[in-house]
Amino acid sequence: MATDRVLVDASALERTVAAILHVRGFGEQDAARSARVLVSADLRGVESHGVSNMLRRYLEWIDSGHLNPVPQVSVIHQKACVASYDADGGLGLAVLPVLMQETIERARQYGIAMVGVRNARHSGMLAFHTILASEQDMVGVCATSGGPRVIPTFGREPRLGTNPLSVALPSNDDHPFVFDAATSVVAYNKIANARRGGDVLGAGWCADGSGTPMMDQRPSDLDVDERMLPLGSSPELGSHKGYALSAVVDVLASILPNGTFIGNLGHGYNGHFLMAINPAGFGPLEEFKSQVSEFARYLRATPRADRDVAVLVPNDREWTMMCERQRSGIPVHREVIAWFDTISDEYGVQRLSR
Amino acid sequence: MATDRVLVDASALERTVAAILHVRGFGEQDAARSARVLVSADLRGVESHGVSNMLRRYLEWIDSGHLNPVPQVSVIHQKACVASYDADGGLGLAVLPVLMQETIERARQYGIAMVGVRNARHSGMLAFHTILASEQDMVGVCATSGGPRVIPTFGREPRLGTNPLSVALPSNDDHPFVFDAATSVVAYNKIANARRGGDVLGAGWCADGSGTPMMDQRPSDLDVDERMLPLGSSPELGSHKGYALSAVVDVLASILPNGTFIGNLGHGYNGHFLMAINPAGFGPLEEFKSQVSEFARYLRATPRADRDVAVLVPNDREWTMMCERQRSGIPVHREVIAWFDTISDEYGVQRLSR
Repeated sequence: MATDRVLVDASALERTVAAILHVRGFGEQDAARSARVLVSADLRGVESHGVSNMLRRYLEWIDSGHLNPVPQVSVIHQKACVASYDADGGLGLAVLPVLMQETIERARQYGIAMVGVRNARHSGMLAFHTILASEQDMVGVCATSGGPRVIPTFGREPRLGTNPLSVALPSNDDHPFVFDAATSVVAYNKIANARRGGDVLGAGWCADGSGTPMMDQRPSDLDVDERMLPLGSSPELGSHKGYALSAVVDVLASILPNGTFIGNLGHGYNGHFLMAINPAGFGPLEEFKSQVSEFARYLRATPRADRDVAVLVPNDREWTMMCERQRSGIPVHREVIAWFDTISDEYGVQRLSR
Repeated sequence: MATDRVLVDASALERTVAAILHVRGFGEQDAARSARVLVSADLRGVESHGVSNMLRRYLEWIDSGHLNPVPQVSVIHQKACVASYDADGGLGLAVLPVLMQETIERARQYGIAMVGVRNARHSGMLAFHTILASEQDMVGVCATSGGPRVIPTFGREPRLGTNPLSVALPSNDDHPFVFDAATSVVAYNKIANARRGGDVLGAGWCADGSGTPMMDQRPSDLDVDERMLPLGSSPELGSHKGYALSAVVDVLASILPNGTFIGNLGHGYNGHFLMAINPAGFGPLEEFKSQVSEFARYLRATPRADRDVAVLVPNDREWTMMCERQRSGIPVHREVIAWFDTISDEYGVQRLSR
């Protein structure tokens, strides 16, 4: 580990984050829930959605009024096993786990359920919400539409967000199969990280100013933040498929609950949808779970292209990371620790123990 | 049009196909439905799933007993708005539209519904089934898992089918937004077509014998039928996302209704799932439909990378083709016409009029 980082105990970090959010107006439960979602991203190695990267932004949003710390979540419309909710400007990290639980209850009764959410700010790591479902023997699905950064195939201006999608599957493994990825070639943070680290933009990540996919590496100081490419990168490699998937996420996560697409809302706004599918409605639950486990083993056992590089199942890497960080702590940059100490003193909250 | 092809009226083709299937044992309604699905693929320019490419194979499957012309479709398991069906070896083209209609009815009542189907042979063009839903003001979703041809990221042997996914959206446009594509870089027929036309394999379609993605064009006589790459092509370009999407399709289309994944069943077998989402359960239906239309216009209006190449919405190309072919006919190869005449005489069916 780099010496500019300190290992911090996950529970200690979670307590401090919760205390700060509570001081800033969050109800106790919302603060605790949000802290858990944030720290779980750090545990899984998804730093882009973790404490260091997001907490400061959330506090700025409270200051600016963009984020409502005490939202009154209300149902707008519903029918048996579907519903739209208005999150009243609340943080997705606080609101979505509650609504996922609601979705799970409906799926338990009906076999499948889906919920759309408008007016919720940042979702946090989607995998948190879908794992909530898989831990309760449901297939969990969640997606988010966000501000335009991705260009449609053959276009040169952004029309779609990076629109991530997550699916988690219940099984008999100690850890579930969890997919969680942007429908663009890379998540936005990969560009920000490349820039911060003085690294290059990878081949196929973005288009040049004319809309032509850049299929070789480029300097990261290029202005490409709103010319990201959909999964598939170029028309020859099938980028129309990534483009279409992203558009479908916009329709289901934004038009369905918002009544409009994200391009009409702009940056800083999101739409979300949550879905739970109850395998017990289709056949014996234990059969499903054991087959998902066997399927995962079958995939991992694929003969390797390179004997030193394992074939993984989505979540293998994140699970390993989580086990390690639960044991030895989460690496946090000294600058972030200093920032924590400053605001902890300011808010009269106990300093982060380490 | 090439002189080796003849323009055939779509309705005439549909009548002849239905008559042949009926003689070969299909009930009248199943024959008519299957013919409609087949010809609608030809109308939309999806020849891979059309009459010329598939009908002969279906007849061979009846001969070999792989396909049951008079299936007794039964429900295996159900719960409010989900169900698993056993299609008794029936053709997907005959069975799936009926089950999609059943799914739509459940979604009308509950807001969302999902159905899994085991023991159905080839699905035909998935867009047919999802458009059934979008024409009835539902979001239609359908996916199929098939025999292993696609390698997981970092692997060198096939573990997944090309596992296509279709989504159709209701709107106020004259034609809906319809996505229908394999979760591999290309559909399998692109390889077969390249071979037939003496063409090359495109960059990023397949891996070489060691599992390394071939990121340049290659001769089409290479043995790559079971080394197709998932959407994203290479690990650098995000192929782990295409791989994960394909695995999710296998779980929902195969494990859910079959009780096992497709790798345990092998080539010639499929699993299917159908889903209908009722936008009226989330908010005003007309608002949803008009926003989907506006979203499509917004996407088409994206400034172009190349002024001669339009930004399309999924289905624009297929819809234009369908309108043209409904007017002027479907181009059918003279060899296929001759084959039709031969078996029409053999079966005592009226010859295809042209």
